[in-house]
Amino acid sequence: MEQIELQRDILDHNNRIGYENSDLFARKGVFVLNLMSSPGAGKTTLLERTIELLKDKYTIGVIEGDIATSFDAERIGAHGVTVTQINTGGACHLDSGMIRKVLADFDLDRTDLLIIENVGNLVCPAEFFLGEDAKAVVLSVTEGEDKPLKYPLIFRLATALVINKVDLLPYIDCSLSRIIRDATGINPSLVVFETSCTARQGLDTWKAWLEGEMHKKKKAGRNP
Amino acid sequence: MEQIELQRDILDHNNRIGYENSDLFARKGVFVLNLMSSPGAGKTTLLERTIELLKDKYTIGVIEGDIATSFDAERIGAHGVTVTQINTGGACHLDSGMIRKVLADFDLDRTDLLIIENVGNLVCPAEFFLGEDAKAVVLSVTEGEDKPLKYPLIFRLATALVINKVDLLPYIDCSLSRIIRDATGINPSLVVFETSCTARQGLDTWKAWLEGEMHKKKKAGRNP
Repeated sequence: MEQIELQRDILDHNNRIGYENSDLFARKGVFVLNLMSSPGAGKTTLLERTIELLKDKYTIGVIEGDIATSFDAERIGAHGVTVTQINTGGACHLDSGMIRKVLADFDLDRTDLLIIENVGNLVCPAEFFLGEDAKAVVLSVTEGEDKPLKYPLIFRLATALVINKVDLLPYIDCSLSRIIRDATGINPSLVVFETSCTARQGLDTWKAWLEGEMHKKKKAGRNP
Repeated sequence: MEQIELQRDILDHNNRIGYENSDLFARKGVFVLNLMSSPGAGKTTLLERTIELLKDKYTIGVIEGDIATSFDAERIGAHGVTVTQINTGGACHLDSGMIRKVLADFDLDRTDLLIIENVGNLVCPAEFFLGEDAKAVVLSVTEGEDKPLKYPLIFRLATALVINKVDLLPYIDCSLSRIIRDATGINPSLVVFETSCTARQGLDTWKAWLEGEMHKKKKAGRNP
């Protein structure tokens, strides 16, 4: 019981700072995406493709969350965008306080899009609001069709679902239609994309959606 | 600071019950394996293959840990072994208290092998000792070669690493040798298996290892 109350305190505290982050992002006109998935579903590769598609048009910043190593930050840094590494030192998710601490690394006045790559974990990151405008969950088809029902919270809270590695479908036993049916059953407003980030498939609609969300926020900021 | 101390209290409390479970398993002569991985790496399929290979020789029990659903317990139950489902209701790992609560579901005097399938998560389950004799971590090659260095704790604490879905290696960019080099760099005594549980490859050495560990414990129990 004590543990549950304490957990509620931690989440309340996290939400408070999350909303402060969110206010700051609104004032600065930055669209913030919280990218989540299991380890190895393809978050970093999706991020690389997204940067390639958008970096000539927008100023992009990236926060890389990892338990150990800065492999992903090095991959992203190679694309010429501002990237900051957060090493959680064991913790299984990012929280809003960690995000706040690194925001000084970015020139937010000049940033259009900030993408936060969370720790690879289909469970805990979903519970921690970082101040983002949207959560996107990446699910690799190699993880199996039963994942939305087995890990429902992250699919319930996400705005977008990117079903990745669809180029591997011929070699595995996985029903794409069941993933979509179950995920949209949990969250009827979920926007679903089917991609192969390594084979560069399905990324145009993802790009169009992301730009649309960015423009919606910009428009709302102008007409409060 | 308070949060760190509290986390230590939670882990201490978990360890205490874990050792009580472990004492009970020793008295009853049950070998207990804690099976962990990311979502969709193939734990349940490995479990099905293991049961097929061993069930004529040993009495096997299975504890299925999941956030929601009893899909895996249904799959395992179809193999004619005793299986109990723990639904964590959101929690990202099993703890020793959850295990203790369901032990009455098993006739431990007649059980040789108890396999606990943990919640799909490469981070949190590693921190919680359940009373097991060995931890095995399953890593799918589709998750990528960088996972041991990015999620080191689970590889450090595991006795066995099962590198699964090796039948997909021709279709992806993943260095098996780097996984093995990095994982054994973190944990030099790690025993490594290369399997495809769906294609039934590489399971003989896994079976031999598991039987070897079971016999070691039985022998130690007879000569205290």
